[in-house]
Amino acid sequence: MARIAVDPARTYLLFNHGPVTLVSSAHGGRVNIMAASWAMPLDFDPPKAVVIIDRNTLTRELVDASGEFGLMIPSRALAAETVGVGSQSGRDIDKFAQFGLNTFAASKISAPLIEGCVAWMECKVLPERAVEQRYDLFVAEIVAAWADDRAFVNNRWRFDDPDLRTIHHVAGGSFFETGESLAVPGAED
Amino acid sequence: MARIAVDPARTYLLFNHGPVTLVSSAHGGRVNIMAASWAMPLDFDPPKAVVIIDRNTLTRELVDASGEFGLMIPSRALAAETVGVGSQSGRDIDKFAQFGLNTFAASKISAPLIEGCVAWMECKVLPERAVEQRYDLFVAEIVAAWADDRAFVNNRWRFDDPDLRTIHHVAGGSFFETGESLAVPGAED
Repeated sequence: MARIAVDPARTYLLFNHGPVTLVSSAHGGRVNIMAASWAMPLDFDPPKAVVIIDRNTLTRELVDASGEFGLMIPSRALAAETVGVGSQSGRDIDKFAQFGLNTFAASKISAPLIEGCVAWMECKVLPERAVEQRYDLFVAEIVAAWADDRAFVNNRWRFDDPDLRTIHHVAGGSFFETGESLAVPGAED
Repeated sequence: MARIAVDPARTYLLFNHGPVTLVSSAHGGRVNIMAASWAMPLDFDPPKAVVIIDRNTLTRELVDASGEFGLMIPSRALAAETVGVGSQSGRDIDKFAQFGLNTFAASKISAPLIEGCVAWMECKVLPERAVEQRYDLFVAEIVAAWADDRAFVNNRWRFDDPDLRTIHHVAGGSFFETGESLAVPGAED
């Protein structure tokens, strides 16, 4: 596996199909990881994301303080870990240790990135205090993006290896896998 | 098939898994329909949604004027129509006639709803002018929600009939179907 840089104009393709995400954060020596289903692209180039980050979470505290976060796409192989980090608070436990998550350094943000994901986005918050405070809604620019070259090939997801499939959260510990491709004949790409 | 009312507190489940959506709108005798991949839940009860509505679209003009829109989940059977209404402008053609879309009246908004979808949400915009203008980002309350009782059973999607499966947009005319269920053992619902 190699991590390849994703063209900014193609970065939206990493999560256009609505998979569950992981959100990493760091500030002042503290670090955390949580799951977020409510994350989506909002622009092409420069790429941006919208993510809902609940006001009661440690992640929110670290993102508010640092103005940065990592946004990652876990594969099916990380489904249990995704449920785990989404069910417990980083105020109570070290979720990286608890769930055996290995990290590596991002290129432009201080939050760590998680090994075993199939895509990684480095995000800097574009401050929008009104919607942050009213709706826990964060807008961010994606300043760097990376993908696993076994699963994201020529700017398209390819899920030949079932363990690399992305997953979509339903509720609790229940997901749908990303399923088969469906092409509408005659439509332009 | 029957359309059943969805409990407000469960409405987020209709699109928590990130399927493509259709957005209907109406104002002053004009009506339109478009596709939107960038739509997601942002709260549980009362349920809300975030949707990106490009400033250059007729939909935007009608939503700005009416403060309302329909947000629908098309099934695989409507994939070609979803691409069609997402590729053409309602300023140029009557997309309902062009793509053979039948509609029915919503209960609390004036925009029509599309037959053949598997879920329908009636949305009223919660005005947030700053992010509407900067990012084309709309926050809305979902004031009523409905689902096809063949596909949404006991507050869960069930895709036994492949034609009722929801779809996730990649780009152009390319989608992923919602795939198989995956349950993490021991996780709470």
